[in-house]
Amino acid sequence: MKQQLLRVQNFTVSGDGFGAGEPQSLERPFGHAEPSAFFAWAGATASWPNRTEPGGSRGIDDYFTRDFSRNIGAEIVGRNKFSPLRGPWQDEEWKGWWGDEPPFGTPVFVLTHHSRPSFSLGATTFHFVSGEPTDVLARARAAADGRDVRLGGGAQTIREFLDADLVDTLHVAVCPIRLGSGSRLWQSPTELDDRFHREEVPSPAGVVHHLLWRR
Amino acid sequence: MKQQLLRVQNFTVSGDGFGAGEPQSLERPFGHAEPSAFFAWAGATASWPNRTEPGGSRGIDDYFTRDFSRNIGAEIVGRNKFSPLRGPWQDEEWKGWWGDEPPFGTPVFVLTHHSRPSFSLGATTFHFVSGEPTDVLARARAAADGRDVRLGGGAQTIREFLDADLVDTLHVAVCPIRLGSGSRLWQSPTELDDRFHREEVPSPAGVVHHLLWRR
Repeated sequence: MKQQLLRVQNFTVSGDGFGAGEPQSLERPFGHAEPSAFFAWAGATASWPNRTEPGGSRGIDDYFTRDFSRNIGAEIVGRNKFSPLRGPWQDEEWKGWWGDEPPFGTPVFVLTHHSRPSFSLGATTFHFVSGEPTDVLARARAAADGRDVRLGGGAQTIREFLDADLVDTLHVAVCPIRLGSGSRLWQSPTELDDRFHREEVPSPAGVVHHLLWRR
Repeated sequence: MKQQLLRVQNFTVSGDGFGAGEPQSLERPFGHAEPSAFFAWAGATASWPNRTEPGGSRGIDDYFTRDFSRNIGAEIVGRNKFSPLRGPWQDEEWKGWWGDEPPFGTPVFVLTHHSRPSFSLGATTFHFVSGEPTDVLARARAAADGRDVRLGGGAQTIREFLDADLVDTLHVAVCPIRLGSGSRLWQSPTELDDRFHREEVPSPAGVVHHLLWRR
């Protein structure tokens, strides 16, 4: 049977290593970071799913954009990627940032200590789970129907799975802004070089794509 | 309905622009060019379909390797890509270079003035067609079930479709060897810059990937 990888895909961080600014709120899911600075590289491509007009670039950024969902059968995200709310769920009104058709189309496992029933929206089903990264990954793999599992973030969630040595590949786009504070993925991309091969691919959009895979 | 692109994918040429050396023969499908010099960049990747051992790189070359068949519904190739034989088919013994499981898995349209019945091998069906590039492309699009059409080469075939302005995107890997003669794609990648956007992506394997898409 083919190996089911745990993959980080198209995760964008600032030049100083933050995946989001602070504080997160309903109005500002990325805190003081401008989402447009993070996502312009992908938004300019032909394959960007929210594209409303024809056109768009078909260079290297487009390869990354269209590879996002290739062979992905399940997703794991931290609670803050799902919601700006903290603490126990007051009700079940909040169904994510993404409207009626979340861009996953697979089971999504939301890490939270606060239980909540699973629900489906479009082609996506959200499950609310707690436990060790190893156990959550086992559940996601079982749900992925033989395909890979995407680790969606945020940075803190990726760190937990990196610290447990469960991540097989990472694609991280580093954009040329500095945030100073927020949710940090790393001090420097080089700090994983003892465990991962790493290639740097500069893009005309100004970001540098870092591709990491296990040694 | 989504646009059906005509795409050149993973086509490798020498530094001086040749897609193959000469003369082609059964023993040397690429003439005096060493196939290993052309394909080492792809052969080292985790996604290389002929890989017999685990491992392989998961950097930028792997993106190109695994993108090869994404959303491809039909293929167009020149006769020399299908066979070392010239002139009318003496018999129907020759079924391509690829053994019992050709790596296409789609209808493949072979350009030839010499008629021959279609046949299937594994998941691939070969059709032998003549006519203008526009007409051949129309047949391939109709067979592609809404997906894109890959223009497989060789260089002369790609030139014919470029000259007819039918190609939407090209990915060409330029490897650091000089052949001096053979089947030429271009004098220089820059010669299409009036009609195509172009990005250059150097790979650690020593090739430079050129990504072109229509202006």
